[in-house]
Amino acid sequence: MDIKLPSLQALVRTIQQVPAISPRHIHKVAHFFLTMNTLEREQFCQTIMTSCKNLEECVTCCSWKEVSGTCLFCDDPKRDKTIICIVETWHDLCSIERTNSFNGVYHVLGGSLNPLEGISPEDLTLMTLKQRVLAGGCKELILAMNQTPEGEATTAFIAHMLKECSLNMTCLARGLPVGGSLEFMDKLTVHKALTERRAF
Amino acid sequence: MDIKLPSLQALVRTIQQVPAISPRHIHKVAHFFLTMNTLEREQFCQTIMTSCKNLEECVTCCSWKEVSGTCLFCDDPKRDKTIICIVETWHDLCSIERTNSFNGVYHVLGGSLNPLEGISPEDLTLMTLKQRVLAGGCKELILAMNQTPEGEATTAFIAHMLKECSLNMTCLARGLPVGGSLEFMDKLTVHKALTERRAF
Repeated sequence: MDIKLPSLQALVRTIQQVPAISPRHIHKVAHFFLTMNTLEREQFCQTIMTSCKNLEECVTCCSWKEVSGTCLFCDDPKRDKTIICIVETWHDLCSIERTNSFNGVYHVLGGSLNPLEGISPEDLTLMTLKQRVLAGGCKELILAMNQTPEGEATTAFIAHMLKECSLNMTCLARGLPVGGSLEFMDKLTVHKALTERRAF
Repeated sequence: MDIKLPSLQALVRTIQQVPAISPRHIHKVAHFFLTMNTLEREQFCQTIMTSCKNLEECVTCCSWKEVSGTCLFCDDPKRDKTIICIVETWHDLCSIERTNSFNGVYHVLGGSLNPLEGISPEDLTLMTLKQRVLAGGCKELILAMNQTPEGEATTAFIAHMLKECSLNMTCLARGLPVGGSLEFMDKLTVHKALTERRAF
């Protein structure tokens, strides 16, 4: 910030905390708040406060649920509790839900192992997962972590942690994304698509 | 939103109002608010409320000033009040200030003319500008609107509105951006750079 207005600097610093707003757009967002009237601004802040107060993590799967309600997944009698899909974050869960092709339950880790950023196994919900699996009733674990170095390290860690539970562990299929061209794909993806080819 | 949690939906709808957050990142931002503790969240909202309350538009140049303070530009005795640089928005003003190469004063229009989005001359601070120019004391007007169809329409409108004031009106130089290659430049820019060439 170049403009020497303390209130403006405080506003910009606050907005900078929010992820996914690029530094190029900080001034645009500041302007958005400044041009709201006081009532609109109060309503904006009020909704954030109230919504967040009304949500909590489910003690079983660690995804979000209404404080006053039941878990959309764990407490749904139509869902198959014997298949647990492990995802890194809640947005990954949303990506899977959006497909309408999974009817089991979830386990949200809350991130992936990242020693450089100081994220160790204790920072994730791994103990909850282990207890959940040890409690029995689970037949298949889908390791749906991202295809990043961190995601793969987390997958390996979980596979190792639960190897004695003699569970059916699966992972997401790897290959060409739908709509993708061979030409523009990295060589590792093409290699995986080739070696893991299937009957037509 | 696919997940049927009313509080989460309210939170997402609130965040969707903020410009410059892409739909892909809405869940990430919601997660950011949800994982804050109540105190941090209160401080976040409090800063937005207080900062915005402490800022107001300067009645002369329409840029932001502290309610309790003077305008950084209009009330600065070191600035040349005879040169007014007209910009569309406050972020454009910041872009110019960042260069440290302008010592005049500003006039913030609050946008550009855009009939398709219903932005007509009355929605901009054009009347304030006209009164300011008619009050005298201004020798040069720099028309620093963006090189977009809307920006150029606004430039033409202002030039026409003030044509009887016999002022020295200038606009920003057009040509190759610093660091740009001819190869990647659109033909209109190359044409302008060529026709408006200057002595080396």
